[in-house]
Amino acid sequence: MQNNNVEFLGPPPVEGVGGGGTGYGWNDTGLKPSIDFLSANDVSKHPTVDFVHVWCCPSTATVGHQEPPRPLEQISLLAARNEKESVQIALRPKLSWGGGGMAGQVQIQCSDFCSHSGHKLQVGKEVTLRRVVPMLGVPDALVPLEIPMSQIGLLPGETTAVWMSVDVPPTQPPGVYTGEIAITAVKPDADCSAVEKAECQKVEIKRELQSFLMQAEAVINKSPQELIESLHAICEGLQELIQSPPLAANCGETGKMDIDEECKTSLAVRLGVHITVWEFVLPITPSLPAVFGISETVIEDRFRLEHGSKAWYDSLDMHYKWLLQYRLSPFFCRWGENMRVLTYTCPWPADHPKADEYYGDMRLAVYAVPYAPVLSSSETAKEVVRRELEILKTKDHWKKAYFYLWDEPVGLDQYESIRHMAEEITGTAPDARVLTTYYCGPSDSSGALGSFEAFLKVPTFLRPHTQIFCTSEWVLGGREELVGEITKELQPENREEWWTYVCMGPADLHPNLHLGMRGTQQRAVMWRVWKEGGTGFLYWGVNCYEKANCPAAEIRFRQGLPPGDGVLFYPGEVFNPASTLPVASVRLERLLSGMQDFEYLQLYSSMYGRAAALSLLEKTGMYYGPERYTHEHGAIEVMRGEVYRSYRSPT
Amino acid sequence: MQNNNVEFLGPPPVEGVGGGGTGYGWNDTGLKPSIDFLSANDVSKHPTVDFVHVWCCPSTATVGHQEPPRPLEQISLLAARNEKESVQIALRPKLSWGGGGMAGQVQIQCSDFCSHSGHKLQVGKEVTLRRVVPMLGVPDALVPLEIPMSQIGLLPGETTAVWMSVDVPPTQPPGVYTGEIAITAVKPDADCSAVEKAECQKVEIKRELQSFLMQAEAVINKSPQELIESLHAICEGLQELIQSPPLAANCGETGKMDIDEECKTSLAVRLGVHITVWEFVLPITPSLPAVFGISETVIEDRFRLEHGSKAWYDSLDMHYKWLLQYRLSPFFCRWGENMRVLTYTCPWPADHPKADEYYGDMRLAVYAVPYAPVLSSSETAKEVVRRELEILKTKDHWKKAYFYLWDEPVGLDQYESIRHMAEEITGTAPDARVLTTYYCGPSDSSGALGSFEAFLKVPTFLRPHTQIFCTSEWVLGGREELVGEITKELQPENREEWWTYVCMGPADLHPNLHLGMRGTQQRAVMWRVWKEGGTGFLYWGVNCYEKANCPAAEIRFRQGLPPGDGVLFYPGEVFNPASTLPVASVRLERLLSGMQDFEYLQLYSSMYGRAAALSLLEKTGMYYGPERYTHEHGAIEVMRGEVYRSYRSPT
Repeated sequence: MQNNNVEFLGPPPVEGVGGGGTGYGWNDTGLKPSIDFLSANDVSKHPTVDFVHVWCCPSTATVGHQEPPRPLEQISLLAARNEKESVQIALRPKLSWGGGGMAGQVQIQCSDFCSHSGHKLQVGKEVTLRRVVPMLGVPDALVPLEIPMSQIGLLPGETTAVWMSVDVPPTQPPGVYTGEIAITAVKPDADCSAVEKAECQKVEIKRELQSFLMQAEAVINKSPQELIESLHAICEGLQELIQSPPLAANCGETGKMDIDEECKTSLAVRLGVHITVWEFVLPITPSLPAVFGISETVIEDRFRLEHGSKAWYDSLDMHYKWLLQYRLSPFFCRWGENMRVLTYTCPWPADHPKADEYYGDMRLAVYAVPYAPVLSSSETAKEVVRRELEILKTKDHWKKAYFYLWDEPVGLDQYESIRHMAEEITGTAPDARVLTTYYCGPSDSSGALGSFEAFLKVPTFLRPHTQIFCTSEWVLGGREELVGEITKELQPENREEWWTYVCMGPADLHPNLHLGMRGTQQRAVMWRVWKEGGTGFLYWGVNCYEKANCPAAEIRFRQGLPPGDGVLFYPGEVFNPASTLPVASVRLERLLSGMQDFEYLQLYSSMYGRAAALSLLEKTGMYYGPERYTHEHGAIEVMRGEVYRSYRSPT
Repeated sequence: MQNNNVEFLGPPPVEGVGGGGTGYGWNDTGLKPSIDFLSANDVSKHPTVDFVHVWCCPSTATVGHQEPPRPLEQISLLAARNEKESVQIALRPKLSWGGGGMAGQVQIQCSDFCSHSGHKLQVGKEVTLRRVVPMLGVPDALVPLEIPMSQIGLLPGETTAVWMSVDVPPTQPPGVYTGEIAITAVKPDADCSAVEKAECQKVEIKRELQSFLMQAEAVINKSPQELIESLHAICEGLQELIQSPPLAANCGETGKMDIDEECKTSLAVRLGVHITVWEFVLPITPSLPAVFGISETVIEDRFRLEHGSKAWYDSLDMHYKWLLQYRLSPFFCRWGENMRVLTYTCPWPADHPKADEYYGDMRLAVYAVPYAPVLSSSETAKEVVRRELEILKTKDHWKKAYFYLWDEPVGLDQYESIRHMAEEITGTAPDARVLTTYYCGPSDSSGALGSFEAFLKVPTFLRPHTQIFCTSEWVLGGREELVGEITKELQPENREEWWTYVCMGPADLHPNLHLGMRGTQQRAVMWRVWKEGGTGFLYWGVNCYEKANCPAAEIRFRQGLPPGDGVLFYPGEVFNPASTLPVASVRLERLLSGMQDFEYLQLYSSMYGRAAALSLLEKTGMYYGPERYTHEHGAIEVMRGEVYRSYRSPT
């Protein structure tokens, strides 16, 4: 089955390269005439390989509608424990067998993945399938398919991708897990006409029954002989009706679906899946704190939730738990005047049982403590913060706490406000940490300093009111060597840290999460953080769509922002009004992969030192710098394979 | 209803233009909260305008999936008699109400268009609706929708276009025709579950009937009293069953669809359509002979037809008649060695009744006479041609005849072959015309001439064996002034004509029919012919897909050719295996529009002279030259409107 669709397409035609004539020219590809003309659209008679191209692509590939087919190879994945690995299965019709503008429907069936020792990765639990849906024409939204069997429609001349993920639990026994995905071209779904046919059959049945009734009523006062004759006639009639086409065959009694299934399955394209689960358990608490903002405002508007209502808490809770699966430390946020920002990881107060559940969660690397006075600096608000801090500072998880008060302050007056707030906070909790994001120096400083130098000097203005200096990667451009200049301004002995963020910038070739960037470019965001040595990462928003007040409203990216910036998942309602769970973007999955790569590099560093890990990163061709990293997936697999081998047979 | 979707999107976001923050920034568009959250996906309770953006675009617009909404305006069209006019209706979901990854379904209902005096343009006859389906990502294929009511599925974040055409018969009374298109968001189509439900109901009915049967059979030998009691019981049971839910309401008796319809229709977005049909009848025989090749080879391969079989004749006949609707003069073709080409308009011999039906058709401007010896020069083949010519040269339609023997000859030996064939032909029919295509001079001429000069001198080599000198527009590039140099080499007094063709070239800005070119660029192919004054036009192929041997096989453009080159329609089977009629491309419709514009310009010329028509073409901004013509539809409407007004009130 390895090479069952060999007649794949070449590259798309190029304008002006010669050729012509109404003959087929020099590239008469000589398709094998495997399908008989007359039964061409009868999918129950031919193997699916005659109808559909099936092939696999790595998770970093952008599989658009125009993607040309390639030969089918079996899937082989490597995954640590507590790691999620994904791969794409691409489908493209070779011919049409459906109708209504569709090329046809395929059924996708996924088995559990089992090891020799009988352990399982269960489909629908650890193994999921999602359809890759384009946003602004770029494949991005991952809409869940039904498990273990789902149908999707293929369009003529279009490639469709299915995203398969395996999320290996930390306790999964290591070993090789094998399973299978079967893809079968099927007849069009039962449509209107089938329903109409059923309705018409019911009318027939009804007419028959009415005639029996009239017959029976007519003889009730007749002689016993007539009664018996009539009853015989009715019995015969009923007998006939029961055996008539409308009632003879039906789903309730015979196992017709099963028969169909067996028949179909023998025609399927079968895609073998091998997953090597290895011993290492990715740290439950990510080595890199990566804080990601969830807009409270967007949730309130889009889902029409009253602030503080039960439904509001439920929605925030759902969003928090959902995002936590991506090795991220979520914070909710609401923007105030002049880029003041209220941020908090837990919507419940510190004395609520939920607070410890949130803050104490092993998967949460760090948490934002709400500082309500950022929006309204009443005495009551300040008192609330004091009470919160008195509780939190006694907890084990207090070391994870940080405050994020202002986004990208640019003026000395804004620095001053941060100072005031920081002093309020440290008045109660002297060891509290404040995070401040910035991309430039103070706009109203003396002006004697050049802009990059002013940027470097920000810590002198914010010290000691900020501990986490979080700078935009955009400032560095392609100049990785500037990292040293930033960090040498910091005082690690005074708990000062350097974090980075990406948002609108950097653009172009540099790693970021915008829609339309290469898969490796998105994944490289975390490679960059690892190489530059920052100790944390911030991303401003995961759900910052344009305003809407209906969950199912069309997703619109905000004007003035690059498409995809501030949006890493979509409301499920957009793809299925009955769904309420977020729909992840492929960019979010690639970010998670980057977070996992970070752990591989950490593991390798712990074994051989950071220099060896840096050398591994380069010699595999995976990442040299923000303008030079792999465009191909292979380099990533080489790096991961090397870490796996080194861990199992250390040299 | 003019402005019922005003909150249209602006242009797509631009990278790096500022903005940010998780607030909505400066473009909080303040959508009206028209839809209640809880009933948001219940389309039966809200006007469709809350669910779908609807707007109109001209036929030259490329309406891709990313096309942003605009305000809705009513449709107003101008059409002469015997003219086909088209417009596009764009749809884009504002929110999702469907499921399975769809935003939802809309129902499109089109009325007849009626005039005050009671005349009609009937939907399904003169008025058609087709869905615009992308090929290689470019909206191109026009897949018919069911008439008068059809459903289409909209995808989240994607614009879909419907192409409405009005084909005005030559005999249509002039007047203003008005009608309406109603677009209604509807609940998802009856799906599997409805069919399953019907099946389960049938099982229930069957069980009931079986119990009656057992009951009846049990009492047959009992006392009359028991018989009567049992019969009563059966009657009651039947009565109940007939009134039970599975049989109570059904499609056969109550008009439930009508009630639904009324309710739905009051919620529809209504799009008024005004068509002004004016007095002028576009000439039944096109003023410009435009010959278009249909590959016989592709038909034989794709539909697996044996050459000369009944099905083969039927298929050619269907293709011929279908293409004739586009003001084109079709010819079938088969390529031989060295660009020899067998071309013929009618597959039947000259003495067959079909021959006069084909050749005598008023809509056919010119026809290709088959010259079989082009492929096999046996004496028999030559004799066949002689017999054909003896018949044809006596006919009235003989003046339409031409021979097309060789495509783009480049060597003197090829010229020599043409001379031999032409002499054979003129031996029997001295006034026969031969068409030869070329884009360069003879490759093996003395070399003393520069390449453009060699090209100009081709008539001296081909005279008198060619009458129709058909040159590639590619040779001219943007230099319209070279036309004079070509035509001054010709001898109109000896019936020599200058025709042009486009194929792979010209590219770039120049008019051609490639996929991905602007709509006005495709339509301008005929504007160019009109302005340059050629007396005919040739296009090499309308169905030249890559080889396939199944009608429903995926369409692949030939490698080495620009996408869309040689392909102006698609096999209907690709979009619906049950369909056998070709599916037109938008490029074919735009070509027809160009042919119609040609007639408008001819009409204006006939009233005011060619200079005035040239001036009209320029002053409307419609066409200056192959590198300068309108990108907007408006200029075309201005030209057409001016011709209409001038005709009705000549100055």
